Amino acid sequence: MLAFAETIVPAIAENRASEFTLSNGMDVVVIPDHRAPVVTHMVWYRVGAADEPKGKSGIAHFLEHLMFKSTDKIAIGEFSKIISRLGGQDNAFTGQDVTSYHQRIAKEQLRTVMDMEADRMVNLRLTKDEVATERQVILEERRSRIDNNPTALLDEQMNAALYLSHPYGIPVIGWEHEMAKLSREDALHFYKRYYAPNNAILVVSGDVTADEVKRLAEETYGKIPANPEVDGRERPQEPPQIAARRLTLEDARAGNASFHRYYLAPSYATAKPGEAEALDLLMKIVADGATSRLYKKLVVDDKIAATTGGDFSGWGLDSGTISLYAVAAPNVGLDKIETVIDGVLSDIRANGVTKGELDRAKKSFLADFVYESDNQASLARRYGWSVAIGRKVSEVEDWPNHIANVTTDDIKKAANNYLDARQSVTGWLVPKSNEGSSERVEQPVAHSRS
Amino acid sequence: MLAFAETIVPAIAENRASEFTLSNGMDVVVIPDHRAPVVTHMVWYRVGAADEPKGKSGIAHFLEHLMFKSTDKIAIGEFSKIISRLGGQDNAFTGQDVTSYHQRIAKEQLRTVMDMEADRMVNLRLTKDEVATERQVILEERRSRIDNNPTALLDEQMNAALYLSHPYGIPVIGWEHEMAKLSREDALHFYKRYYAPNNAILVVSGDVTADEVKRLAEETYGKIPANPEVDGRERPQEPPQIAARRLTLEDARAGNASFHRYYLAPSYATAKPGEAEALDLLMKIVADGATSRLYKKLVVDDKIAATTGGDFSGWGLDSGTISLYAVAAPNVGLDKIETVIDGVLSDIRANGVTKGELDRAKKSFLADFVYESDNQASLARRYGWSVAIGRKVSEVEDWPNHIANVTTDDIKKAANNYLDARQSVTGWLVPKSNEGSSERVEQPVAHSRS
Repeated sequence: MLAFAETIVPAIAENRASEFTLSNGMDVVVIPDHRAPVVTHMVWYRVGAADEPKGKSGIAHFLEHLMFKSTDKIAIGEFSKIISRLGGQDNAFTGQDVTSYHQRIAKEQLRTVMDMEADRMVNLRLTKDEVATERQVILEERRSRIDNNPTALLDEQMNAALYLSHPYGIPVIGWEHEMAKLSREDALHFYKRYYAPNNAILVVSGDVTADEVKRLAEETYGKIPANPEVDGRERPQEPPQIAARRLTLEDARAGNASFHRYYLAPSYATAKPGEAEALDLLMKIVADGATSRLYKKLVVDDKIAATTGGDFSGWGLDSGTISLYAVAAPNVGLDKIETVIDGVLSDIRANGVTKGELDRAKKSFLADFVYESDNQASLARRYGWSVAIGRKVSEVEDWPNHIANVTTDDIKKAANNYLDARQSVTGWLVPKSNEGSSERVEQPVAHSRS
Repeated sequence: MLAFAETIVPAIAENRASEFTLSNGMDVVVIPDHRAPVVTHMVWYRVGAADEPKGKSGIAHFLEHLMFKSTDKIAIGEFSKIISRLGGQDNAFTGQDVTSYHQRIAKEQLRTVMDMEADRMVNLRLTKDEVATERQVILEERRSRIDNNPTALLDEQMNAALYLSHPYGIPVIGWEHEMAKLSREDALHFYKRYYAPNNAILVVSGDVTADEVKRLAEETYGKIPANPEVDGRERPQEPPQIAARRLTLEDARAGNASFHRYYLAPSYATAKPGEAEALDLLMKIVADGATSRLYKKLVVDDKIAATTGGDFSGWGLDSGTISLYAVAAPNVGLDKIETVIDGVLSDIRANGVTKGELDRAKKSFLADFVYESDNQASLARRYGWSVAIGRKVSEVEDWPNHIANVTTDDIKKAANNYLDARQSVTGWLVPKSNEGSSERVEQPVAHSRS
């Protein structure tokens, strides 16, 4: 293991990022990369869907859309067009914990982009008509992404069941009936509460130096006063989870029946040292790709599943999730799939994983890390997201070492601690039966093992 | 049916209550009953646990406890002692939608009680020490009522799973980790936002006239100015429910295994005319007592259950619930119980109920109504709760007529509309298996019917 760490880690763990804070409280991370005269510019806000007021689900994402409307300096809908005319690309992202805006552009245009992004941080203008039009856009986005996709609907229902109290149970895009009522006032209220330099992180990667970015940042974002009204995040946390949950979604549009399971787990932001890394490795061994335990057992050996997969999602501010799925082969019942998957998990809890599996998983993660590090945008995203959930730049850069240090014992312990049915929800997606014209959905009957 | 209505209803549907509103917006309902020189005095606030701020679960109930502390006129903890010294009894209640305070006392003491209740409506004093001490009391209440009771724990988990978004999914008493942090400021903030005459209903039943109560109310509650800051209730509502949910709680303290199911349904406040009455009658026929469908099938005929029951709970502001349960006979699996219960429900959806069953159910409800009407406190509670969730006094008094008008077709329709698995959660409570020392809880494996 140590030998392994020594040969792989030093090559990639060079400290590349600098960080500093403007006098108004805005954090800045700079990751120089001089191979091409381009930069990736991102602003991350420490706010996401999980910070929304009661009954206003979708407002974080709606505001992200509305940020592309106008300010005193930018005409309606011109933001992206200007970036495009400058030869750049831009986009934005809303998650449960973060909201980010990013542009990739020639280095000489960085100042312009920073001016524009700083401008819309505090000078957004919204008319009722723009809000009404954009509301139709997000409603359509929901229809196409969620309501027309049985797997997305199942995911939404499973999340609602996974969290007893935490707002992670509410979809980022919002519940339709609440989205339909989101108003200009809701958007501006959310904007004024959370969009401010002291709640933001600037990340610039590419053909720049920390000194250049510092000067530009002071001349643009640095001119915006801190907003003392920015509140911390107020989020209900989970009570102890004591009862395994499950649900069945019948949908005529579903293809083969599929099995899904989520477990609540810690995240990199909440786990004890090494635990999140162990979960990442565990799930790579269990569920990632054709050499994973699940794939070998369900697809290759038993031939009961068409495919299977899963991962550990460890980047939440308040918790992480373990997820697994398998699409049943024709004429195979989900009860069979579930029994076999539970068998695979029980085996890992009882016997752990092999040194060979662990080494391969580490190698794969470290290779991905190196590969991603070669990409300006991935790199900026890695730092931005991590800092937004409270991790230090040094922790981001030490990650390969922490991965390298995980032992097979750590993996077994993580499996035993977190593959805990009481903290899980199991979802079955089944094609709707066409018996008669009834809309009724029968529940499957469960059989106890005990 | 009409004949039935004519013979039973007129005797009980005499309009007994008067209602009026004070100039500060406080609603008053008076139900005279001169058989004994006592009165029941209640103040209902249009606020409950479902109105709590994010992450402050339990604050409505905690404040209800703290209302028994001091004001300028009442020394610490003296409120109930004074009532007791006057020969009366007092208590209070917190629900998801309402909070009420009530006293039963000799009629000549009514003025004193009204003075005291009006006083604590706006003059509550709280010290940090009192709050800290009482917080221990509510935490202990939670431990004894919920945490030491597997059925209560299951109910809590099932409610959390039944509601995807609505705060009815949060327990009235609160999640322990949030209760432990409730502060004096939280209590006072909730108090000042919701406790005001224009958010309250006074109900007095007993040996009084409407004129007497009006005069006393104006001299006491009437002196308190309306609070224009009282906000309406802001509550997230449910998205469409599309996936049947289920969960299993294993608990070493559970006795025989038991089966539980809740369905989301409309309430008297939200249903179309006659629907809630049909649900009340449906559930009496299905699940109430030894002549119910479930009892006859599971306990008497098949002998697979030790007992069974259920009801329709229709008094929520935003929705109601249908609930069912059965305790398994020794060595009977819950899968068997569930199959038989689903069979009983399917039969009712397909074939409805008989005229004889419906007539018996009506007779039973109307008898209960008459019986309760004979009790001052029940009567005051009936009017207070109904008015608090927005029903009119006339609707309260017309209820027996609406029950009398329900047809077997209405029952069948209600069963088909609301015994809908997609809007349900099924809970299994099973004694914990003692295999080894593992804390692991295995999920039951579900078998699809399709």
